[in-house]
Amino acid sequence: MRDTAAALPADGDQVSLSAGLWDMLAAIRPGDIPASARERVRLCVLDTIGVALAAAARGVGTAGAKVARPEHAGATVWGSGFTARAQDAALANGILAHALDFDDTHPEAIMHTSAIIVPAALAVAEEERLSGDALVAALVAGYEAAARLGRAAPGAFQENGFQATAVLGVFAATVAVGHLRGVSHETARNAMGLAGSMASGLMEYLSDGSDAKQMHCGWAAQSAIRAVDLARAGLTGPARVLEGRFGVYRSFTRREAKVEEILAPFRPRFEVERMAPKPYPACLCVHAGIDAMLALRRSGAFQPDNPDNIAEIICEVPQWYVNLVLEPLDKKMHPRTPYEARFSLPYCLARAAVDGRVGLDSFGKDRLTDSGIAALAQRVSYKVRQFDEFPEAFPAVVTLRTADGHERSHAELYNRGSERNPMSRAEIEAKFADAVGDSLSQDQARAVITAIQTLSGMPTLNDLSAVLRQAVPAV
Amino acid sequence: MRDTAAALPADGDQVSLSAGLWDMLAAIRPGDIPASARERVRLCVLDTIGVALAAAARGVGTAGAKVARPEHAGATVWGSGFTARAQDAALANGILAHALDFDDTHPEAIMHTSAIIVPAALAVAEEERLSGDALVAALVAGYEAAARLGRAAPGAFQENGFQATAVLGVFAATVAVGHLRGVSHETARNAMGLAGSMASGLMEYLSDGSDAKQMHCGWAAQSAIRAVDLARAGLTGPARVLEGRFGVYRSFTRREAKVEEILAPFRPRFEVERMAPKPYPACLCVHAGIDAMLALRRSGAFQPDNPDNIAEIICEVPQWYVNLVLEPLDKKMHPRTPYEARFSLPYCLARAAVDGRVGLDSFGKDRLTDSGIAALAQRVSYKVRQFDEFPEAFPAVVTLRTADGHERSHAELYNRGSERNPMSRAEIEAKFADAVGDSLSQDQARAVITAIQTLSGMPTLNDLSAVLRQAVPAV
Repeated sequence: MRDTAAALPADGDQVSLSAGLWDMLAAIRPGDIPASARERVRLCVLDTIGVALAAAARGVGTAGAKVARPEHAGATVWGSGFTARAQDAALANGILAHALDFDDTHPEAIMHTSAIIVPAALAVAEEERLSGDALVAALVAGYEAAARLGRAAPGAFQENGFQATAVLGVFAATVAVGHLRGVSHETARNAMGLAGSMASGLMEYLSDGSDAKQMHCGWAAQSAIRAVDLARAGLTGPARVLEGRFGVYRSFTRREAKVEEILAPFRPRFEVERMAPKPYPACLCVHAGIDAMLALRRSGAFQPDNPDNIAEIICEVPQWYVNLVLEPLDKKMHPRTPYEARFSLPYCLARAAVDGRVGLDSFGKDRLTDSGIAALAQRVSYKVRQFDEFPEAFPAVVTLRTADGHERSHAELYNRGSERNPMSRAEIEAKFADAVGDSLSQDQARAVITAIQTLSGMPTLNDLSAVLRQAVPAV
Repeated sequence: MRDTAAALPADGDQVSLSAGLWDMLAAIRPGDIPASARERVRLCVLDTIGVALAAAARGVGTAGAKVARPEHAGATVWGSGFTARAQDAALANGILAHALDFDDTHPEAIMHTSAIIVPAALAVAEEERLSGDALVAALVAGYEAAARLGRAAPGAFQENGFQATAVLGVFAATVAVGHLRGVSHETARNAMGLAGSMASGLMEYLSDGSDAKQMHCGWAAQSAIRAVDLARAGLTGPARVLEGRFGVYRSFTRREAKVEEILAPFRPRFEVERMAPKPYPACLCVHAGIDAMLALRRSGAFQPDNPDNIAEIICEVPQWYVNLVLEPLDKKMHPRTPYEARFSLPYCLARAAVDGRVGLDSFGKDRLTDSGIAALAQRVSYKVRQFDEFPEAFPAVVTLRTADGHERSHAELYNRGSERNPMSRAEIEAKFADAVGDSLSQDQARAVITAIQTLSGMPTLNDLSAVLRQAVPAV
């Protein structure tokens, strides 16, 4: 693995940022990856499959599985018990993985990542019978790509109406799939160029809480497989797809591509080690608030059996959260769908205060109309402030005023799951067990955990495929 | 078919432009379509297949066919002799149809249309054994959608780095596929919403003439099939995908959606009758220039056997042409690839002057370095002027100065193929015969023409499929 200089690389008579990025990441070999990063990849794979199976068990995000055509050989469609062509499996699994908004995030890049690159790479590795080591190395490269591309313009895609996860995700998945298939420099550059004309993902789903966002990760995953397919079949793409006059950054964000940042030398740890799994199945912007509220509850700041005693809940948050989980405030106080509830800080804070926990069952359709929750959610207000921790982590401060005039605050500066407040392997395995608990047997759950734990060193993914084909939730 | 009022329609508790557009177009039934429009649809289908087979015969744009997986049943992959799943066939055929830039345009919308909606609808009709009348009605609806969406913002996508053909084409194809499958209002609205998160297509290919643009039509075609598939499987999309705060028009063009224009009452003739087939396999912006030069040649304005006698060629063109076919002028004078030559007005004018014709063979790789052509192309200059005819048609004025001081001009205000200067059925059939002449036998070519002529009234497309499977160019 070489530390590439930050200059834009020449590529024949053309310079190409995508080719430069590819060259850096193509050089990552299994032997370069420390044990801590390999462990983190395995936990990301486990977490991604867990949240996908939790969605499948709830009949959420299953449209991709329904349109996948079962084929004798291929890749497993998670939760369905059949295999399909890699692109069908990647679409189906990517939709499932993101459907509950329970999948991980790279905070600094403000991008979901695993829900795109794990379905894409795993489907290709399964279909083409590639090794566990090859899969892990390809994923490490994919996480690097996502982090570098996202960190170069955090929030800029969203401001312009596009979801960074979707638009940049296809490039990260193209790197992962290209790495796995060992494509040439030229093929990779063309695949990245073609991926640019597949990059898509509007934020309009925010207006009505419709499912389109669920589709973004799966769509990017299957697009990446197509981009590599088409490039291998000889179709060429623009070399300056990222930094060109009509390239991704200028067209989607109105800003120049930050070439030096994207090609910066590797950090001491691979980016996969900065992936933040989610303890709660909700937007990352509500997590620190939930943990702050739970801390206040544990410390006796209010009487849990009498939430009417809470006169006011004030959240201090970064500006970034406002449009996602706080405004329009009146709508956020009365979420109409599970999806809207996952993107409502007032609802999530009220749930945490009353229930003392937030989990998958907190967002059941029948739970949304609970009048005690609605009454408490209406007493939530917010203040925007600057946090130095953001976006490296997603912080919040919660202040409670009780009816008898007491005031108590709790600051949660590093959301649980982020680099400085990580979830342990035991916690992630417990999350997995809980996520699949009502759908898989304990033996099945344990078999998936074991197959993923032993991924490195496996000549093929056959064992993992076999247990995943068995893991069919009884819906 | 009803003349919808221009007000934004209410749809439950939501208003939705996409749903309003769908309702207008879903109401188009085969019996509503006059003979002239049915004839035009058949000619568009013939022309689309012809230009696709011409590409296949030249080995251009065949990547989609290479990645399509042959299946016993399904839709024909043109020029390959096998069938595949509808989405594979739509991708492959859409790439072929646009690969030579010989496919038709809706001038006012500044959008290619047939290369997207014909591959999408034909693949679905073939796979699902639907009737010729259903296909024709679905295509009429698709052409309406494309024209209305494109005309609402001509050039605005391109200015922002996106190709309107690609971004809006997926919606037109979604209308056509939804119409063909007879989906419900709700399914159609969701499919349109999902299509918004598949809409993509960067203009960066302009920088290096790479093939990505070839892919745009096929990608939109296959995306539309997926959008309808996923909506039928229950996935929902945003209702205000076109006009919303983060909808297509605001995000891709920075402008409001022109609701009244998109929902305007039907014009006296359906939009398919405004489709402009191309007499020349090159960017539409060079067509009027070529015809003007050919007219000057026929009128004896210069000695064709002595092009050195031409001292100067001045084109007057709309501003729109400049970035596509004139600048950077030095590069345009020396095209390096057939693709660049198709987008070079200097090259095309020189070819027309010297050869007295422009055809598929004018863009062979070996023809680009012809020194006489290069010398003449270097004597081309241009002036931008306002044309009232643009963009309803694509006009140009060519003025020649000869070495002995004579000056002659010819104005071609309506490009051949456009509504006021249409190509006749005989001309389109001749174009087809020429396009497939070096790859299909005369009997095969005639069989395709006959099968398409008799499309209306056919209970299935079996006859057309059978002849298309035979139509395999000997590359």
